[in-house]
Amino acid sequence: MSGSSHIYRASTTAPVNIAVIKYWGKRDTSLNLPTNSSLSVTLSQKSLRTHTTASCSTSFSGPDSLILNGEAEDIQSSKRTQACLKHLRSLREQLEVKDGSLPKLSEMTLRIVSSNNFPTAAGLASSAAGFAALVRAIADLYDLPQTPEELSLIARQGSGSACRSLMGGYVAWRAGTKADGSDSIAEEVAPVSHWPEMRALILVVSAEKKGVPSTAGMQTTVETSTLAPARFQEIVPKRMAEIEQAIHEKDFETFARITMQDSNSFHAICLDSWPPIHYLNDVSRAAMSAVETANRKAGKLICAYTFDAGPNAVIYYLEEHTHQVAGVFRSLLERTPGWEGEFAQDIRPNESGSLDAKALMTLKSGISRVICTGVGGGPERIEKHLVDENGKAVSVEE
Amino acid sequence: MSGSSHIYRASTTAPVNIAVIKYWGKRDTSLNLPTNSSLSVTLSQKSLRTHTTASCSTSFSGPDSLILNGEAEDIQSSKRTQACLKHLRSLREQLEVKDGSLPKLSEMTLRIVSSNNFPTAAGLASSAAGFAALVRAIADLYDLPQTPEELSLIARQGSGSACRSLMGGYVAWRAGTKADGSDSIAEEVAPVSHWPEMRALILVVSAEKKGVPSTAGMQTTVETSTLAPARFQEIVPKRMAEIEQAIHEKDFETFARITMQDSNSFHAICLDSWPPIHYLNDVSRAAMSAVETANRKAGKLICAYTFDAGPNAVIYYLEEHTHQVAGVFRSLLERTPGWEGEFAQDIRPNESGSLDAKALMTLKSGISRVICTGVGGGPERIEKHLVDENGKAVSVEE
Repeated sequence: MSGSSHIYRASTTAPVNIAVIKYWGKRDTSLNLPTNSSLSVTLSQKSLRTHTTASCSTSFSGPDSLILNGEAEDIQSSKRTQACLKHLRSLREQLEVKDGSLPKLSEMTLRIVSSNNFPTAAGLASSAAGFAALVRAIADLYDLPQTPEELSLIARQGSGSACRSLMGGYVAWRAGTKADGSDSIAEEVAPVSHWPEMRALILVVSAEKKGVPSTAGMQTTVETSTLAPARFQEIVPKRMAEIEQAIHEKDFETFARITMQDSNSFHAICLDSWPPIHYLNDVSRAAMSAVETANRKAGKLICAYTFDAGPNAVIYYLEEHTHQVAGVFRSLLERTPGWEGEFAQDIRPNESGSLDAKALMTLKSGISRVICTGVGGGPERIEKHLVDENGKAVSVEE
Repeated sequence: MSGSSHIYRASTTAPVNIAVIKYWGKRDTSLNLPTNSSLSVTLSQKSLRTHTTASCSTSFSGPDSLILNGEAEDIQSSKRTQACLKHLRSLREQLEVKDGSLPKLSEMTLRIVSSNNFPTAAGLASSAAGFAALVRAIADLYDLPQTPEELSLIARQGSGSACRSLMGGYVAWRAGTKADGSDSIAEEVAPVSHWPEMRALILVVSAEKKGVPSTAGMQTTVETSTLAPARFQEIVPKRMAEIEQAIHEKDFETFARITMQDSNSFHAICLDSWPPIHYLNDVSRAAMSAVETANRKAGKLICAYTFDAGPNAVIYYLEEHTHQVAGVFRSLLERTPGWEGEFAQDIRPNESGSLDAKALMTLKSGISRVICTGVGGGPERIEKHLVDENGKAVSVEE
């Protein structure tokens, strides 16, 4: 390495998002174009985030590289990563063509170093935060003028749901109708500041055999589920309109009902696939039962479960109901690790939750950790770099 | 009681049936008119049956009565039972009006005694066999000329699926379209003799909290599931045609695929209901996994699971595959009671079945008994009466 060549660097953190209207099915598998629009809540980066540094230099040689959590990833054979890099480089090249004084970053080898602040073992889909951070960091490195919406189009090609992690708050991914995907982008429905009281409690289910990977699973559903077309064509469009209005009006009950119904609808079309796909297990169902009990007790919907392509439960609730929701789970799962961090401070055990003995046992033995979090903002540019001034990956305590 | 008054008696046995195209949803709740047609396999009465004696006499007084498994049932407040009795009586009355020499049985009090040869605790829907036996026994007592198809219309009003237990073999229940239900009847698609090799292995899951009762559950689905209309209107009619053809052609692979898909479709719309309805649990899913493993091993579909409104698995297979299907389960569940009776004679443990350790443990600990059976005939008139010559209920060793 040459110490004399300048190392260009940009670092960002990007959040995880958890959908309340689920993305499940592609109408175009190479462009990651979805069969239906989706909507998610961006989760606070205080709890979960990917930190990524993108760097380039004339002193770097060989192919672009990515080190993720300390391990070199094979990005050469990843079509999805290559599509993102190619797209970002061509945008940089356009700037360089227009302004000859700009350094030719588009011609330099990229070194990308990335790190998650949560264990991969937690079973949380990290690809959304990962691709959002990758795209955001390179866009910053390249000084691209594109808006988050425009960048979402690129992140989408890396991982569909990544497009929703480029913004904070409440984010919709519009399915779009064009064959080239140019209208399949994410947009902010409401910023964090509109409804900052949204909280999320994640119940991480003890690891067992990994289920069907989502990329394969969703195409099985598209090709075989006879119930799925109704979901894609009629049910989700109606729910999108309803939940957006609920978010605008801060109507938690409607938000909660639609969130739960859409999670169930998604898992229903998984079960209806051939061969059938199961992500929910008895622990997931015990979590659903605990949520139903808390709602029944409150006489209204004060919390909502949602499940992605795995058994982990994400439970949304408003700060004002912390004691009635998170407090009950803290009491049920007092010895489970994870009751920590900023969002956990106000959660004290609430022993008034009633749950039948069997569901209680199933939960206690089946949940390995909890994560206390809430709605949060989009990617943030930071000056803490994971590549040092000599172009070496540095390991930092996350 | 008067020893001099004649006691008129007729006794019948009636079978259980297990649907391969599921009935779930009523278009008319008082007439038990379904949202879709369904199709079932009648199971052998050697394994499971209801035995019912209908009796009447001028010496009987007071209201009609029913003793089920030794306990008096409150049939006065059962609208469904009353609808059946009223309909049967009016048919008898028509005969008596036409032929004045006939004894006026329609004016006499009915005493009905009924007994199942399987424990209610097994969680097997006994209402189908129960209402089929009730209707058949009274029709015999009254010497009614109606065909089983015509009687199915009456049994349907007792319990929807009961209409399919009035015939043996492979039985369709046509949903019909008329408001009065006069075209909503059962008919034989093929007799036992057409495809007598069909076997059924029932895995009874250890009792836990009873799920949502089917009558309430199916209306929740009709009223709330947004995926259900596609099932009712398009998916089931297509499957009915396909599986009837498969039965006519004795095409087990198609029969098996549709059976499994329709079970999954039914449970999918249950999950899509609001609040969601769960009948499958981790034990059910382990049974599905064992079936999938046996099919994968065979390189074709040699067995099919189906689940009613509960976690019990019913596994259909052909006699020729006894060793590859039932043998594997016998090996897995060697200590589970129930490997007995005529259909179990050829089932020897087959240790070549491979199942992942977790699914195996779940099955072993979750299945409380097995029932080995197969396709069988319709109701049979028998001379063993559960009411003696003095009009008293007798208890018999079933």
